[in-house]
Amino acid sequence: MSGHSAERSPYKEAVWIGTGNMGLPMAKNLLRSGIRLGVHNRTPQRLAPLLKAGAHAIADLRGSLSGTPLVFTMLADDAAVKETVLKEGGLLDSLPQGGVHVSMGTLSPGFVLELSKTHTERGQILVSAPVFGRPDRAEAGTLTIVAAGPQKTLESLLPLLEHLGSPVFCVGEDPSLANHIKVLGNFTLAGLLETLAESLSLARRVGVSPEQLVEILDTALYRSPVFRNYGQLMAREDFQPAGFRMRLGLKDVRLVQKEADRVDVALPLADLLHAGFLAGIHRGMEDWDWSALGQVRAEDAGAARKK
Amino acid sequence: MSGHSAERSPYKEAVWIGTGNMGLPMAKNLLRSGIRLGVHNRTPQRLAPLLKAGAHAIADLRGSLSGTPLVFTMLADDAAVKETVLKEGGLLDSLPQGGVHVSMGTLSPGFVLELSKTHTERGQILVSAPVFGRPDRAEAGTLTIVAAGPQKTLESLLPLLEHLGSPVFCVGEDPSLANHIKVLGNFTLAGLLETLAESLSLARRVGVSPEQLVEILDTALYRSPVFRNYGQLMAREDFQPAGFRMRLGLKDVRLVQKEADRVDVALPLADLLHAGFLAGIHRGMEDWDWSALGQVRAEDAGAARKK
Amino acid sequence: MSGHSAERSPYKEAVWIGTGNMGLPMAKNLLRSGIRLGVHNRTPQRLAPLLKAGAHAIADLRGSLSGTPLVFTMLADDAAVKETVLKEGGLLDSLPQGGVHVSMGTLSPGFVLELSKTHTERGQILVSAPVFGRPDRAEAGTLTIVAAGPQKTLESLLPLLEHLGSPVFCVGEDPSLANHIKVLGNFTLAGLLETLAESLSLARRVGVSPEQLVEILDTALYRSPVFRNYGQLMAREDFQPAGFRMRLGLKDVRLVQKEADRVDVALPLADLLHAGFLAGIHRGMEDWDWSALGQVRAEDAGAARKK
Amino acid sequence: MSGHSAERSPYKEAVWIGTGNMGLPMAKNLLRSGIRLGVHNRTPQRLAPLLKAGAHAIADLRGSLSGTPLVFTMLADDAAVKETVLKEGGLLDSLPQGGVHVSMGTLSPGFVLELSKTHTERGQILVSAPVFGRPDRAEAGTLTIVAAGPQKTLESLLPLLEHLGSPVFCVGEDPSLANHIKVLGNFTLAGLLETLAESLSLARRVGVSPEQLVEILDTALYRSPVFRNYGQLMAREDFQPAGFRMRLGLKDVRLVQKEADRVDVALPLADLLHAGFLAGIHRGMEDWDWSALGQVRAEDAGAARKK
Repeated sequence: MSGHSAERSPYKEAVWIGTGNMGLPMAKNLLRSGIRLGVHNRTPQRLAPLLKAGAHAIADLRGSLSGTPLVFTMLADDAAVKETVLKEGGLLDSLPQGGVHVSMGTLSPGFVLELSKTHTERGQILVSAPVFGRPDRAEAGTLTIVAAGPQKTLESLLPLLEHLGSPVFCVGEDPSLANHIKVLGNFTLAGLLETLAESLSLARRVGVSPEQLVEILDTALYRSPVFRNYGQLMAREDFQPAGFRMRLGLKDVRLVQKEADRVDVALPLADLLHAGFLAGIHRGMEDWDWSALGQVRAEDAGAARKK
Repeated sequence: MSGHSAERSPYKEAVWIGTGNMGLPMAKNLLRSGIRLGVHNRTPQRLAPLLKAGAHAIADLRGSLSGTPLVFTMLADDAAVKETVLKEGGLLDSLPQGGVHVSMGTLSPGFVLELSKTHTERGQILVSAPVFGRPDRAEAGTLTIVAAGPQKTLESLLPLLEHLGSPVFCVGEDPSLANHIKVLGNFTLAGLLETLAESLSLARRVGVSPEQLVEILDTALYRSPVFRNYGQLMAREDFQPAGFRMRLGLKDVRLVQKEADRVDVALPLADLLHAGFLAGIHRGMEDWDWSALGQVRAEDAGAARKK
Repeated sequence: MSGHSAERSPYKEAVWIGTGNMGLPMAKNLLRSGIRLGVHNRTPQRLAPLLKAGAHAIADLRGSLSGTPLVFTMLADDAAVKETVLKEGGLLDSLPQGGVHVSMGTLSPGFVLELSKTHTERGQILVSAPVFGRPDRAEAGTLTIVAAGPQKTLESLLPLLEHLGSPVFCVGEDPSLANHIKVLGNFTLAGLLETLAESLSLARRVGVSPEQLVEILDTALYRSPVFRNYGQLMAREDFQPAGFRMRLGLKDVRLVQKEADRVDVALPLADLLHAGFLAGIHRGMEDWDWSALGQVRAEDAGAARKK
Repeated sequence: MSGHSAERSPYKEAVWIGTGNMGLPMAKNLLRSGIRLGVHNRTPQRLAPLLKAGAHAIADLRGSLSGTPLVFTMLADDAAVKETVLKEGGLLDSLPQGGVHVSMGTLSPGFVLELSKTHTERGQILVSAPVFGRPDRAEAGTLTIVAAGPQKTLESLLPLLEHLGSPVFCVGEDPSLANHIKVLGNFTLAGLLETLAESLSLARRVGVSPEQLVEILDTALYRSPVFRNYGQLMAREDFQPAGFRMRLGLKDVRLVQKEADRVDVALPLADLLHAGFLAGIHRGMEDWDWSALGQVRAEDAGAARKK
């Protein structure tokens, strides 16, 4: 967490792939550790702020990674990781034996398990380290990081990861455990949205002020920035621009349903969310914030849409 | 909130009815305001600690209230209030014109609305002031109080109510508004229980530690004592003794369903909770803590019951 | 069932109250038994066809029933029966000791149980005999009748009831049993509607013809006029005019939910129907046929409304 | 449908793969058309009755199909078809150009679409012709067959298919349409099971005889062998031996959920069924008849299990 962390890390150089809204500030914070960092993005223009901060650009991943034992990816989904890692000439081919791939995106646990086996077959190591937090926390270096992978590798990475956020929770040797936790965390947030959506929809019908309800319940019970934040968005019907789009909410619900079904668990709340987000998307809310689930439930209760 | 509050209140004496786990410490705190307090309970033995603290016992409510313009009730449900207030010789008959009934129990909004009309017809005033918080917060005088009734009456009561908890939220002239908020608040808690129940049930099946999951999500997202507390109870399968019994959870879900149905609102999450609590009760969990909803979902996912 | 039935019935005269779409043809068929029939309706103009068929009008129920030991009611709901039977000067007051009230409407089982007790206290007998079938079957005298009440009374009524429909199922001494069966029967129909609604909504999205689907499934599996009829209504989006209005569907679902809740049974399918009918009503389908539940599910799946 | 059908069919010989409970009687009926039939099964002992009836055994599929332009498969699921058709040396390799594969099992529509493309690439034709009916109807040649594929091919097959059942519904050129209908049909049956399960569970609690309820509702409303049959199984709690196992019910629900999700349709009833079958399986009912969903709902309503 402090300046000497990089000294404790055995890694002197690394490569960072993926510089979207989250990846960019994360890479910037990693640079502060003093590590030599090559950066790559599908849209190279996005790299400018990092080059200014001391990183060097990597135009072509082929070959250029062969000497680099440490590569971070911060990519949107399974498909993007497949494209970057698994296709011919991808990371799998260019990472050296003993090299470490730290995947920080929100991927499906099942895919991470497969990916881990594939890396192992090549003598490489996968660490999965998805994060909780929006871009502002990425910027501030205060993300919560959930990391899983071989213990010694995790220990060697900690001094670096602590530049991106803390605490870093190490949750086991199987990389997919970290993704299970990330997927479950997002499911609990969606559960909070359903709870708020139904509560505010009823509140309106019986003459209770939604904003006052959120204020009182947060004071009396929750004292939680997440409860207050989503409650206020929903109370104010403030769904655009989106912090997290409804179609991504649907994607995350599908992830948790898929994992649950794989182990023969039914999740009735996830089923409600699945139906709710789909209804919203069919009503044109695809790119609204996922808290617009409140609008779906309000409309089902007879409310008109705010212009 | 401070020692001089009682001086600001126009009331020099009052009667307190109902000294259960919540009512007893609340009445004790009210005594600290310096008010002269008569106390009554169906089981008179429960009054001892209050008498020691300076209250006087009221054996028979009939007549003895005729000179007292202020009566608090802290009773379990609509039925108990009907018994105490509405039956012949009850509070309705003994309270003088202009007298104030402050009802602090968790009653149904529909009943409170009726009760308010009945008091008004007799020239009396109903204030509804349900509370959030368990006995420990009642003891500490840190309940959250949601009060509704005629504004001037509310103002005259504030110096007294602040001995029981703060903040006191005044939410309108219609007394039933306070009960709507209380009912909605309990519904959101039950929604949290469902969310946790499904999440932990899946976590166990995929090898994630439930306690670690709760710890990580609270740190990363919620930072909420309520989330952490219920999450830990459920993770530890620590359902007995109950903080709040499952059959009371069912009662509260039925309250919110009834209110919703009255205004043509469907609450799919409340329906899930209704089914979940009923299943638990039929499996013998009636007197377990309502967080045992986690056990219901776990069993539906194939988990055995912990001895 | 044949012409001599009336001879076997000990009743030579009776009164019929309620001549709506169902009551009118039922009363007409009862006349065919040869019984002397007084008829009454809130809107007396509705009586004309019956007077022509040989009935006599009863303008005022007060007193005029005191000599009549047998009164049929075919009324819309609990409220209408309360109005006609329970209020001062109602049927309860004018029916003689030993008189029989045959209630043929769709009432709530709980109310029928109360009503039965009330009649018994007056030395009167309640028989509950709700029917299955639409006006066309009432006309044809082919209703299915479910009757419950004291066995001897039922036997004495059979020759009359068989003019209204057959078979007549006698299901026990407790009159509310008949209403339980009626309520459950309507619930199964609503369950069929939900099944069809979801199936046709998916069929449309994957390119299967809804009409062909209904045709095939009825041929292959159901061979049921009810399945075919509702399936075709839904496939053709033929929701107006209504055979049975959506708001009555909602009323029936609420009946079954209330009965279930009273005995601590959860009905998740009834909860789905409750939400579905409410959504439809809030979208303006209140007076559409209840098979318009198909439209609700189709819209939730992104379908536009047919003009 | 009569003896001269085979004369109208251009096919003089065919191969039949898969002789389980359904496949065996179907193949036997096909022999009656007069066609020369080679038969194959993973467990060759199962072929005996067919050899006696005039078929010849095919021990190894490799090569032996190269001259046969017509192959029927009646296999359990996608996996079995993959094994038989797609793996090296499978049907795909041995069927000649212009050859026809008639797949009669219950496969997922998505897989059939893929399979159809694969056959087309080899210049082969896929007809999908799943059936409705249990082994008794297969035996009697009264299955309902839903067929989809190129119209001319369908026409040439009709004289043969009519030996297996009638009517044969031809539903379009895209083979997966037939599977959509089969999957939807099974979903409607499961919907009927949920409806019955909840109804009978409530009936028991309020004192209505489940068997009488089924009898009355079938007489009054459904007049359907399917309603009566499943209703009686459930009323009698007659779940073993299974006609159709609960785990196959779960498989079919998952099929319809998967298809629905692919086209962004939510099926709340399918979600209920998914949860219900999973709960039953976790309670040890995996190999009970799927109508044991009635037992699941009854247990959730407090009923004990019948020994």
